[in-house]
Amino acid sequence: MSPRHLLIVAHGSRRAASNEEVRQLAERVRELRSPGIDHVETAFLELAEPDISAGLARCVALGAREIVLFPYFLAAGTHVVEDIPEVVAAFRAGHPHVAVRVTGHLGASEVLPRAILEVAASLKAA
Amino acid sequence: MSPRHLLIVAHGSRRAASNEEVRQLAERVRELRSPGIDHVETAFLELAEPDISAGLARCVALGAREIVLFPYFLAAGTHVVEDIPEVVAAFRAGHPHVAVRVTGHLGASEVLPRAILEVAASLKAA
Repeated sequence: MSPRHLLIVAHGSRRAASNEEVRQLAERVRELRSPGIDHVETAFLELAEPDISAGLARCVALGAREIVLFPYFLAAGTHVVEDIPEVVAAFRAGHPHVAVRVTGHLGASEVLPRAILEVAASLKAA
Repeated sequence: MSPRHLLIVAHGSRRAASNEEVRQLAERVRELRSPGIDHVETAFLELAEPDISAGLARCVALGAREIVLFPYFLAAGTHVVEDIPEVVAAFRAGHPHVAVRVTGHLGASEVLPRAILEVAASLKAA
């Protein structure tokens, strides 16, 4: 199986701590050591680095042949519907040997409702 | 057991479709019919209605004696750290018979890393 990377793409913030939260989230995903994901990277649409193109390029430099891009966004706004696909299309044109696949954004994720209930339940036990 | 409501609090957006996404998320949470949650409501910090006070008041009007407030935010910015607690404190002062408990924000949720891997895995199967 070819090396498969997960790229978590967040909006990016002027507030450094918010960007750091995204990197910490990626670290927590890494720690789960999913058998289907060989590496986890982060990238930002704007205001923080690396940007999406640089994040994708870094995955390729690290050996990825397949990249799953996860839009870490709550709403399907312009960023999710237009900006991210645009960057991905440009990247694909320059890297025809790398498969880049984009998942639904976080807010539309099927697993989110149950995750929210788990958070509510964990508070109950506290 | 006293009626326990879940109030999902989002930032709110000028874009109506984004607010609608939050309401749809709440509907998906409702459909799971968690035994520990009797009712699910939504509220917005700004730019959409109801605001947090009105959302809490609606829960009480519907019979809640315990409200779990879930901050649907990715980062622990001012909104999560200051604004929401401030509104909750004011509400508590006026409603001493209602227990309002605030969970960690979505971005810090322990269930999020696994949820992200599930999204990535579901794409693989597609």
